[in-house]
Amino acid sequence: MIKRIDHIAIVVEDIDTALGFWRDALGLELTHVEDVPQQQAAVAFLPTGQSEVELVKPTCETSGIARFLAKRGPGLHHICFEVDDIAQTMQLLRQRGVRMIDETPRIGTGGKQIAFVHPQSTHGVLVELYQLTEQEPENRLARQLSLADRVMHQGQVMRAAVLAFLNHLVSGDAPPAGSNGDQPK
Amino acid sequence: MIKRIDHIAIVVEDIDTALGFWRDALGLELTHVEDVPQQQAAVAFLPTGQSEVELVKPTCETSGIARFLAKRGPGLHHICFEVDDIAQTMQLLRQRGVRMIDETPRIGTGGKQIAFVHPQSTHGVLVELYQLTEQEPENRLARQLSLADRVMHQGQVMRAAVLAFLNHLVSGDAPPAGSNGDQPK
Repeated sequence: MIKRIDHIAIVVEDIDTALGFWRDALGLELTHVEDVPQQQAAVAFLPTGQSEVELVKPTCETSGIARFLAKRGPGLHHICFEVDDIAQTMQLLRQRGVRMIDETPRIGTGGKQIAFVHPQSTHGVLVELYQLTEQEPENRLARQLSLADRVMHQGQVMRAAVLAFLNHLVSGDAPPAGSNGDQPK
Repeated sequence: MIKRIDHIAIVVEDIDTALGFWRDALGLELTHVEDVPQQQAAVAFLPTGQSEVELVKPTCETSGIARFLAKRGPGLHHICFEVDDIAQTMQLLRQRGVRMIDETPRIGTGGKQIAFVHPQSTHGVLVELYQLTEQEPENRLARQLSLADRVMHQGQVMRAAVLAFLNHLVSGDAPPAGSNGDQPK
């Protein structure tokens, strides 16, 4: 059901000021800043590993995010998980007595299908669910993994497989043992 | 410098009650609960993808976590990033004017080397840095990836490599096409 943490959202008073820490000091890469009118916010995206840090600045004074900022100050706002099937997950959660903020999935940043779980059911944590859809302009996860990492990993696995196969051919009888290319003597 | 989000820590009043949402409703896997005397807390670990959700319950009434709980109620507490080299990262952050809570790395859960950045420098977010060390009993990331995922991936890559090699043997001269088995003539 849950595949991974998609992002951690952090409410900020000012995106440029916050980037002074997250990008300039900590060294995260800023991919882009997106205006999200339906959430009355501007969002800066900073991927790391399989996930993203999102800096969220309210663009009006009456939104939920603006009220959070006024009441609690800047800080961690919500955690978003990628799920395989958002409709199925929401149905299952409701069956298990979980209260949802959204009764049906809605469209979030980048065309994603999203829904929020009510903090009443999560003991104080705002939880977002998200399903990757064809409407998304690109596979964000693929973009986030370093190309070098993927090539290195594939290369290592292929090398082991080919070596194991070659050794098998040479030895003539004994099948290769082990999944990584261990060879019997 | 930053490799990935290692975990998101969530302060809870009671671990069993919180597991009613995170494990029983949301479906995350609970690997174990660890008593952490140096942080005066009990921690439940729920891995997902490359990262973990950690439920943190204070075990005394005077710790920082207990004071957070008393002041703000249960909820998101801090975000932890894995770094390549924690000493180097801390030095770089200080050079960039960032204030650290820990002046030198200390030992956290599972023998990890950790250090906290002061929320004053992060605009309200408690940030933990963590370096994988040999003292850690196991590679947590490897444990977090589903065994099925790893076997499936290795199998698919090996199958492609072996098929490419076999095709090359059969054809005798033409190199297999594609990037998974290009051979010199």
